[in-house]
Amino acid sequence: MELSTRNRLKARIKDIKSDAIMSELVLDVGGQEMCSTITTGSVNRLGLKAGDEITALVKASSVMIAK
Amino acid sequence: MELSTRNRLKARIKDIKSDAIMSELVLDVGGQEMCSTITTGSVNRLGLKAGDEITALVKASSVMIAK
Amino acid sequence: MELSTRNRLKARIKDIKSDAIMSELVLDVGGQEMCSTITTGSVNRLGLKAGDEITALVKASSVMIAK
Amino acid sequence: MELSTRNRLKARIKDIKSDAIMSELVLDVGGQEMCSTITTGSVNRLGLKAGDEITALVKASSVMIAK
Amino acid sequence: MELSTRNRLKARIKDIKSDAIMSELVLDVGGQEMCSTITTGSVNRLGLKAGDEITALVKASSVMIAK
Amino acid sequence: MELSTRNRLKARIKDIKSDAIMSELVLDVGGQEMCSTITTGSVNRLGLKAGDEITALVKASSVMIAK
Repeated sequence: MELSTRNRLKARIKDIKSDAIMSELVLDVGGQEMCSTITTGSVNRLGLKAGDEITALVKASSVMIAK
Repeated sequence: MELSTRNRLKARIKDIKSDAIMSELVLDVGGQEMCSTITTGSVNRLGLKAGDEITALVKASSVMIAK
Repeated sequence: MELSTRNRLKARIKDIKSDAIMSELVLDVGGQEMCSTITTGSVNRLGLKAGDEITALVKASSVMIAK
Repeated sequence: MELSTRNRLKARIKDIKSDAIMSELVLDVGGQEMCSTITTGSVNRLGLKAGDEITALVKASSVMIAK
Repeated sequence: MELSTRNRLKARIKDIKSDAIMSELVLDVGGQEMCSTITTGSVNRLGLKAGDEITALVKASSVMIAK
Repeated sequence: MELSTRNRLKARIKDIKSDAIMSELVLDVGGQEMCSTITTGSVNRLGLKAGDEITALVKASSVMIAK
């Protein structure tokens, strides 16, 4: 499967905090920290846990620039 | 100014392509490539050009995970 | 590759309109029409054209409800 | 009221899971499954429940393509 | 039609710039300026023009906070 | 720091509701109500509380129009 988004950042999960509906993942992207909120259902379905090597996907239209 | 998003990735602009309304920026994030689409008006207002050191901002709710 | 989003709608591309930076795709999702804007660079990279069977991906946090 | 987004998918709510702040809705879109996260406040305000016929709204800029 | 998002800001269109695919709208929201990018197809379909009184809709998950 | 988004609405926090992962903020934007969902971690990190004068940030690509 090929994706339209080129924003596929290799990352490692540093931490996952979950409640019933939502989970917050802290990611390490080449030494920089990034945060993702996804459903706890998806965390369980993918079997995500701290230490996993994953890919962070972001649509280009969601990326702002600060200078 | 302090932002609610922790997703502030240091990046360098590799390339900017623009038409009248939209611009596409290719970013280098620690060796990984990332793409951002913002208005050409914002590119001009910030004076963005290839080579600039910038920060890429992404709201945590926009970050998906692939494994 | 497994994705955190469960929103993977099988669709067929009905039409693509492009300018230099952005493209607008009209999709047929089981008889319902859906629209996607992605970069023209991604349209070319994936070789997308009218008639293609594709999957439309949407993060759950981007789906609103009207009643 | 007329909306700028053409992405208005007729759907039926299959399931709602809620905690204090966020709710996760599983939708049936013509036989395909779709997921939406909205606030529990909005679920209550609209009186949403399993079985309801609703419309799922998505801005075109939030729709990615996989091939 | 009732929407899940409570973010419905009354606004007036100050300016519209369009190219073939995308349009940029500058809005006046009670004296504050706001910008929206939608497809030119939607601008034409809704017959939007400078001076129109409209409603700007934003999903709560897309609103960041700066302090 | 200069941001690519021009959508910076001055607002006052009217109310914050939190659970472990997500918080919902009700904002007053010049007399109009707006809602934001951010992580509870960010609410705590910024020390946000009812009554605070803040800025609501929204990327232009996330703003829909209703007429």
